[in-house]
Amino acid sequence: MNPGAERLLARVTQLNADYARAIDDDRLEDWPGFFAEKCVYKITSADNHRRGLQVGVIYADTIGMLRDRVAALREANVYERQTYRHLIGLPALIGPVEGGEVRAETPFLVVRIMRDGTMDIFATGRYLDALVEDGGALRFRERIVVCDSGRFDTLLAIPL
Amino acid sequence: MNPGAERLLARVTQLNADYARAIDDDRLEDWPGFFAEKCVYKITSADNHRRGLQVGVIYADTIGMLRDRVAALREANVYERQTYRHLIGLPALIGPVEGGEVRAETPFLVVRIMRDGTMDIFATGRYLDALVEDGGALRFRERIVVCDSGRFDTLLAIPL
Amino acid sequence: MNPGAERLLARVTQLNADYARAIDDDRLEDWPGFFAEKCVYKITSADNHRRGLQVGVIYADTIGMLRDRVAALREANVYERQTYRHLIGLPALIGPVEGGEVRAETPFLVVRIMRDGTMDIFATGRYLDALVEDGGALRFRERIVVCDSGRFDTLLAIPL
Repeated sequence: MNPGAERLLARVTQLNADYARAIDDDRLEDWPGFFAEKCVYKITSADNHRRGLQVGVIYADTIGMLRDRVAALREANVYERQTYRHLIGLPALIGPVEGGEVRAETPFLVVRIMRDGTMDIFATGRYLDALVEDGGALRFRERIVVCDSGRFDTLLAIPL
Repeated sequence: MNPGAERLLARVTQLNADYARAIDDDRLEDWPGFFAEKCVYKITSADNHRRGLQVGVIYADTIGMLRDRVAALREANVYERQTYRHLIGLPALIGPVEGGEVRAETPFLVVRIMRDGTMDIFATGRYLDALVEDGGALRFRERIVVCDSGRFDTLLAIPL
Repeated sequence: MNPGAERLLARVTQLNADYARAIDDDRLEDWPGFFAEKCVYKITSADNHRRGLQVGVIYADTIGMLRDRVAALREANVYERQTYRHLIGLPALIGPVEGGEVRAETPFLVVRIMRDGTMDIFATGRYLDALVEDGGALRFRERIVVCDSGRFDTLLAIPL
């Protein structure tokens, strides 16, 4: 790997860690800031993704929709009933690295911790990302969260 | 750590990520390509490994045996019933780093996702690897998969 | 990130990997060596930590107490009934990086493997660390293990 690609890989790795930390620390208001103004955020299953189905469990295509989602979560107090812990693997950079958009694919595991202390594997999967330079930082122009399991908990509420 | 060791660590980390991604993406045909022509692949338990027992649940000592294994899996369609998600820790480089064979030890966690959507911890453990330069790439001359638990699922089929 | 911060991040990442490996390999006698002579080691829950409660499930404030703990574990043979597997995320470096103490925050997941082979998620959370240069190595002056769940297993015995 050349130094430019190494540097980029380090930045994408860091971005993923910051993203997970914001969610796991319950700083949900910081979450939309990881996205570009024009963006797509979608949660879907591996099956639906493979079959090209555009339907996702959660879908947003502006940063405003992401902010609305956080506001709704705060109002509903759903977030008080559970927290997450993300473990994130090494990103794979896809396609050309220099100039324009960067594509990355990153495996993840999310454990959910309920208020009574029980823990379970909430989701595993991979992030399919398109990243852009935006005001000196890398931000998501697109983040498709492809969950390995098609069985989504009805409590699915906090962003993954 | 000197720059040579840092560089090698980055390469081993990358190799592990690529290896896991091939399996988790169901590109099993790519899996034998991570091994040298003369190679050992073995899955065993921590108990058996500690006691020096050579018996492994799965054992292959040529790249041809690895290819046969994938072909058998495709024929049996076992792989359709489940998928894996690997999470891999930072490798530890063991012994001398420059020249010849590289030894590494890397922790892993594998979640299994069944067709009905249920997820469980399938295996945890560490990879004990001997790596060689082979045509410009690092490849496994030996990969011993030491699982922490001695309880192997009878469905054990997809490579770990 | 500047080269100094990158270098430090690599060292903290490595330290965490070495720390986890010592515990998971059952080299508990090596564990106190990751701490400075004057140190704090505490396990607590996210709830207690947030509320500023100083009470921890386990507390030690000298390296001698850590050594005593390992000796007691060996005597009680508790450790023979279970092993751990740590998966550790990317550390976040907090505050000033150059000179004096380094602060880091690192997510973790620990799977417990019982003697009968059953595996469960034992703990998730984050390490809140203060690190110092000590004889050419980074060591913990403080490691607060903040577990996401407040439900601690009564078997909690091996260090996290």
